[in-house]
Amino acid sequence: MLSEKELAWVKERYSSVYLNPLTPLSFLKRSELVFPKKTAVIYRDRSFTWKAFANRVYSLANGLKNKGIQKHERVAMISRNNNALLESFYGISMAGGVSVPLNYRLSDKDVAYALNHSESKALIFEHIYAETIKGIQKDLRTLEFFIEIDSPEENNGAPLGIPYEAFLNKSSSQPLDIPVMDENDMLSIVYTSGTTGLPKGCVHTHRGAYLNAMGELLAARMHAESAYLWTLPMFHCQGWCFVWGVTAVGAKHVCLDAVRAEQICQLMTQEKVTHMCGAPIVYTTIADYMEKNGLHFENTIRGFMGGAAPSPVNIQKAENIGMDIHQVYGLTEVYGPHTLCEWHSEDWDDLPLAKRAQLKARQGVPYATYTLVKVVDEDMNEVPWDGQTPGEIVMKGNNVMQWYFNEYDKTDEAFRGGWFHSGDAAIVHPDGYIEITDRLKDIIVTGGENVSSVEVENIIAEFPGVVDVAVISKPDEKWGEIVKAVVHMEAGIEATAEAIIKWCRERLAGFKTPKEVEFGVVPRSATGKIQKHVLKQREKDLLAGVRPLTSPPLAGEARGRG
Amino acid sequence: MLSEKELAWVKERYSSVYLNPLTPLSFLKRSELVFPKKTAVIYRDRSFTWKAFANRVYSLANGLKNKGIQKHERVAMISRNNNALLESFYGISMAGGVSVPLNYRLSDKDVAYALNHSESKALIFEHIYAETIKGIQKDLRTLEFFIEIDSPEENNGAPLGIPYEAFLNKSSSQPLDIPVMDENDMLSIVYTSGTTGLPKGCVHTHRGAYLNAMGELLAARMHAESAYLWTLPMFHCQGWCFVWGVTAVGAKHVCLDAVRAEQICQLMTQEKVTHMCGAPIVYTTIADYMEKNGLHFENTIRGFMGGAAPSPVNIQKAENIGMDIHQVYGLTEVYGPHTLCEWHSEDWDDLPLAKRAQLKARQGVPYATYTLVKVVDEDMNEVPWDGQTPGEIVMKGNNVMQWYFNEYDKTDEAFRGGWFHSGDAAIVHPDGYIEITDRLKDIIVTGGENVSSVEVENIIAEFPGVVDVAVISKPDEKWGEIVKAVVHMEAGIEATAEAIIKWCRERLAGFKTPKEVEFGVVPRSATGKIQKHVLKQREKDLLAGVRPLTSPPLAGEARGRG
Repeated sequence: MLSEKELAWVKERYSSVYLNPLTPLSFLKRSELVFPKKTAVIYRDRSFTWKAFANRVYSLANGLKNKGIQKHERVAMISRNNNALLESFYGISMAGGVSVPLNYRLSDKDVAYALNHSESKALIFEHIYAETIKGIQKDLRTLEFFIEIDSPEENNGAPLGIPYEAFLNKSSSQPLDIPVMDENDMLSIVYTSGTTGLPKGCVHTHRGAYLNAMGELLAARMHAESAYLWTLPMFHCQGWCFVWGVTAVGAKHVCLDAVRAEQICQLMTQEKVTHMCGAPIVYTTIADYMEKNGLHFENTIRGFMGGAAPSPVNIQKAENIGMDIHQVYGLTEVYGPHTLCEWHSEDWDDLPLAKRAQLKARQGVPYATYTLVKVVDEDMNEVPWDGQTPGEIVMKGNNVMQWYFNEYDKTDEAFRGGWFHSGDAAIVHPDGYIEITDRLKDIIVTGGENVSSVEVENIIAEFPGVVDVAVISKPDEKWGEIVKAVVHMEAGIEATAEAIIKWCRERLAGFKTPKEVEFGVVPRSATGKIQKHVLKQREKDLLAGVRPLTSPPLAGEARGRG
Repeated sequence: MLSEKELAWVKERYSSVYLNPLTPLSFLKRSELVFPKKTAVIYRDRSFTWKAFANRVYSLANGLKNKGIQKHERVAMISRNNNALLESFYGISMAGGVSVPLNYRLSDKDVAYALNHSESKALIFEHIYAETIKGIQKDLRTLEFFIEIDSPEENNGAPLGIPYEAFLNKSSSQPLDIPVMDENDMLSIVYTSGTTGLPKGCVHTHRGAYLNAMGELLAARMHAESAYLWTLPMFHCQGWCFVWGVTAVGAKHVCLDAVRAEQICQLMTQEKVTHMCGAPIVYTTIADYMEKNGLHFENTIRGFMGGAAPSPVNIQKAENIGMDIHQVYGLTEVYGPHTLCEWHSEDWDDLPLAKRAQLKARQGVPYATYTLVKVVDEDMNEVPWDGQTPGEIVMKGNNVMQWYFNEYDKTDEAFRGGWFHSGDAAIVHPDGYIEITDRLKDIIVTGGENVSSVEVENIIAEFPGVVDVAVISKPDEKWGEIVKAVVHMEAGIEATAEAIIKWCRERLAGFKTPKEVEFGVVPRSATGKIQKHVLKQREKDLLAGVRPLTSPPLAGEARGRG
């Protein structure tokens, strides 16, 4: 019998033969080898084969190396979905660097913060964001050079950075070996939208992205003949790892730089699209347009919906135009989707719509790649699977980020008890499917973007004459939720909703700016905490007709408490 | 900038949250959770849901633990494909043990060797192999107990071991946690057929099997609605890892204990089979039967073919009955298939049959999971991709075994230069697809089983009066290849082919016994090596009609050299 010690010795002795690091860069190597002449990427009127795409990636990587980018050094990107952004994910990593894809909807302040916090040495940005960059340039402490991607619809003269195409053209397209020695090395730092204050940089590793991409592929049932339409921004968790997954099976990336229904429908047909991802509003936008124009997809499109549960209306609309929607759930901290509402065709296909919607509204179960998800009480004990006891969703395993970059305290807090705490409250149904019952109280999800109510509250609090403020979500057919502010003004001081909204718009990203402002006293608990559940419930009641919309509900309460 | 040292510290600090060991046991956990009521396994008239299957696995595991099986201890199995064998793969590993699935076609001697060499403490065997076990029982040095699976078609009275069902019934089905702490721990030891002498035990790890299963799933395009027919023996590399993969996506295992065309066709329809694997002869058997009975599959069956390249006839036959065949290539040392002839629908679907067959006959490219494969000369330099320069296929990475169990010298030899040496000679086409040009000279592949010509030669050499002997493959429509012996007898001593064949049958597994014996002088090189290429070429020429079959070709040569 071999001893444990001897077995350990064997593992070590032969490891160079039986182990190679998991990295999604290998997917590019494979598709370059297997599908050199097959179409890899489409963007507007440009089309690239896998060989051409790989060559461009190598050119970018060689160029970055020549400019001094070294192992583990960060290179950030701000761009809409296009071939250059996709190439950047691969090129930066092939150079040994770490990509930092930024949400172009962040405020200038947050962009500057993320660039400095990640210590990015270079920034690859699309021309339309040049003004943003110019505005913050003086605050950037680590950036050494800029590369500027053309925006097709704009005059791109007098670029701020090195033109992207010129940068590629003067670099060698000599293939590079995958530079990854340790699969737990950083692949990417993806910043959250700062829902609890400053953006945090989630460190995604090569192993994590590889495995998450595998999970997505199995769930999406993708293969070499699939075509993936980029309705989801690539900056969101590397496009929920589809940046990597689509490449792994040699499917086709169909890039899309804005959610325009007409263009989407054209691409769906023209490129024989089979898959897409997005927030509910993306699906609604497509469905509305198609309904209006009497259109229907020829083949079923498998769509992953994230960010919010699909309503029966969403599902009905999607089915009417020929889509098959599956809900997925996750966060930036877990590479995007971590659970899937795995469908049971044999039992559920023939149920009535309302019932199917109810089932599809659940966040479900882990992917086939299998990492751990559970719903726990405050002592980390699993809640009963009774469909009613709420707890917090916690996760652990290969699909959890490595840490919040350079934030030990925040990481320790998020990882307390050895699990990542999602901040999402959920119940577990008797069949083990989890369902989110509430967002962490301060998060508003509007059009697929997360908004921290605290951040908005802080801005409004600075408005002259504001005594108190609460920012909450309000259910909305189109956006899922909208940002709503309840503002308590000093006695004798008048303000208009318009003035508050303008104030916010000047200081926040557009999606964070409240769409509605109401004046009145903010209900607070004995310990002084805002009772957001009271406000939220009132919004739901109003929508449901429990209270007439015409009665200003907080005025009376304000008097009562004033 | 964080230092390398600090980054290493971060990796370590948070590893318990962002890492969990890759193991195919997680697939069972997931399907048990997600698909408890869905059919998991079918065998003859029995059917098990995922929950029922999991419970049986836990019962087996708890029972094995109660009987003293501890971490890393080996438990062997000899059984045809059935639910109990499938349960054993999972149950042994859930108990912390290591499964040793034995090829039931091995000779008694080799079975005893593998049981002793693996130091197996228990053996789970099917009743029909009881006589084999009894015959070798006195030679078994480490076995402590036997568990006996009923054979449905036999009288199973007076079992040699504990009856399998009774063993399960008296054990607790209490779920167990996955006992794997290190993904590089042994999952299984799979013995080769001893093509170069004694069987060698290939150590498959949890990580390797997990990743290989992922690769199979993506290549097979399997999902929860798929049904996999077990035409391939599960003992072959854990059924090319489909033992794990089918479970990962919650598809259905349809067990089959013998390749009987009529039953296969019934199951295909009855269980809505979508996938299968096997050697060419399995496909031919099915196709012949269906052709004769005018049958055609309703849905396309995606079939992986291994062990030999499909001929145009194979492909034509398979297409005629509604199958879509893909060639895969691998060895026990690489968990079964390691490359796939990835198909290019867009370019190749409409080619004429002969051209398609030529393309499909290639062993292809690595799976999407991507491990390294190349063809090298004797100095380990890659051969040019010219479609004509031969070299040896070498492999490396996650899909290569950890080592030959307890065989340092043999492992070092197989891993020389840091790569696993397949022993298969191949060329690389200009598109990077590899194609095997020759087996290592001593291997004969008959009906999907490997036969070492050296082993057979050694047996024949012991026959009274034999001077020299060469054992070669002979191309065969039905078996792919058959074993043929060329025997040189002492002057004046007569022997018949029948006597030689009988001699071999008493000493070798049936599939290793020559089907043809010819008498004559064996051609040898100057250094005394048998010139098998001469003999093989002659067989091909004979088949192609270059020399008349009636002329005994070696007799003349024998005289010339004698």
